[in-house]
Amino acid sequence: MSRILYDLAGEDESLRFSPYCWRTKLALAHKNLTYDTLPWHFSDKDKIAFSGQGKVPVLIDGSTIIADSQLIADYLEEAYPHEPSLYGDAPGRALTFFVKSWTERVLHRAISLVVLPDIHAKIAPQDRAYFRATREAAFKRTLEDIAADRQEAQTALDATLKPLHATLDQQPFIAGDTPNYADHIVFGALAWGRLISSTPLLSTDDPLARWMEAVLETYGLPAMFAA
Amino acid sequence: MSRILYDLAGEDESLRFSPYCWRTKLALAHKNLTYDTLPWHFSDKDKIAFSGQGKVPVLIDGSTIIADSQLIADYLEEAYPHEPSLYGDAPGRALTFFVKSWTERVLHRAISLVVLPDIHAKIAPQDRAYFRATREAAFKRTLEDIAADRQEAQTALDATLKPLHATLDQQPFIAGDTPNYADHIVFGALAWGRLISSTPLLSTDDPLARWMEAVLETYGLPAMFAA
Repeated sequence: MSRILYDLAGEDESLRFSPYCWRTKLALAHKNLTYDTLPWHFSDKDKIAFSGQGKVPVLIDGSTIIADSQLIADYLEEAYPHEPSLYGDAPGRALTFFVKSWTERVLHRAISLVVLPDIHAKIAPQDRAYFRATREAAFKRTLEDIAADRQEAQTALDATLKPLHATLDQQPFIAGDTPNYADHIVFGALAWGRLISSTPLLSTDDPLARWMEAVLETYGLPAMFAA
Repeated sequence: MSRILYDLAGEDESLRFSPYCWRTKLALAHKNLTYDTLPWHFSDKDKIAFSGQGKVPVLIDGSTIIADSQLIADYLEEAYPHEPSLYGDAPGRALTFFVKSWTERVLHRAISLVVLPDIHAKIAPQDRAYFRATREAAFKRTLEDIAADRQEAQTALDATLKPLHATLDQQPFIAGDTPNYADHIVFGALAWGRLISSTPLLSTDDPLARWMEAVLETYGLPAMFAA
């Protein structure tokens, strides 16, 4: 049985930077499931019309079609109960939702203010008008204004990362001795930022950079940002 | 067997506002343990010298003396394994450490910038010089400068609370269907701020205010801030 994941790509289709797709790729690895990816661009709405909506990740697992990273994670947890759990017990699953809320409302925003102009430059040309319009509306600023404040945004991002640094100062992974979906969520955010950024978001000796490599190593995945 | 908790008090000794002492009081309630409190002031270092350090909470449980809210929680979890767990399984315990890191490094700071002048006004007169010196050093600003920016601090606090609002929009407690130590940590922060603030930190119809009352109700404790 083949599994297919529609995965957001840049103009260079080897650049796969979506934070939500990264969550799904790590969740699949956590469940010991193999898959192939198909590169997808923001403007390829028709290619995933079969999923009933217009965003990635979209996973095809045999006869199951499922979109939305959280729905995919919940599906994998239920469909593959004998593989390692993505969440642990009920409190762990609930606390993962706090990590998700913080990541999406605080960390993604902080990273966006550094890298939005870089994303615009690296996505497929046919995606750029859509990207500019939606992001400038969301942030109520032009990409050029955001680019002008990049250094301040990096400083704010450094401050935003403090709770992660404090956590990983105490334990190897956000979920403890081994990573789980909480790690996948935060990894997705930082992988997105680091893959697309034209400047280093993290220094290579940052404990967060080491944690990211440890997550990849846990799943037998190749290093992404090694010095 | 009697249990005694040394609990930070204001000039009015019925005002018990320490966020760390609130964690311990809720953890004791979670473990179905009764206790008496002794009011303590910042300058009462001699009264807890027996604990080998100078801060509260300090818990005396039979022949055990233990200081530091996290050490107390870990002690209670180990000493009372047949009572409900404070953390759930290993991933839940690790994720609680992320909640703790975020609360102490982000939420406490945001609340402090609103209420530090109120704390100074409401603690015992003999505590005020110590409090002013340590807090002005930590924040690198005078209490008067902090007071002047109170409205901006409240606006920043409102933004800081967004991940909590998003979480409690999805589930009754931070730890899911019932509260655990992750809820106690965040409750402690907001109880501290709300008990000491001269202005409402939260409106009474804020979902966070309702969640706080639900936490108290879970443990059969009286309402603190009911409208």
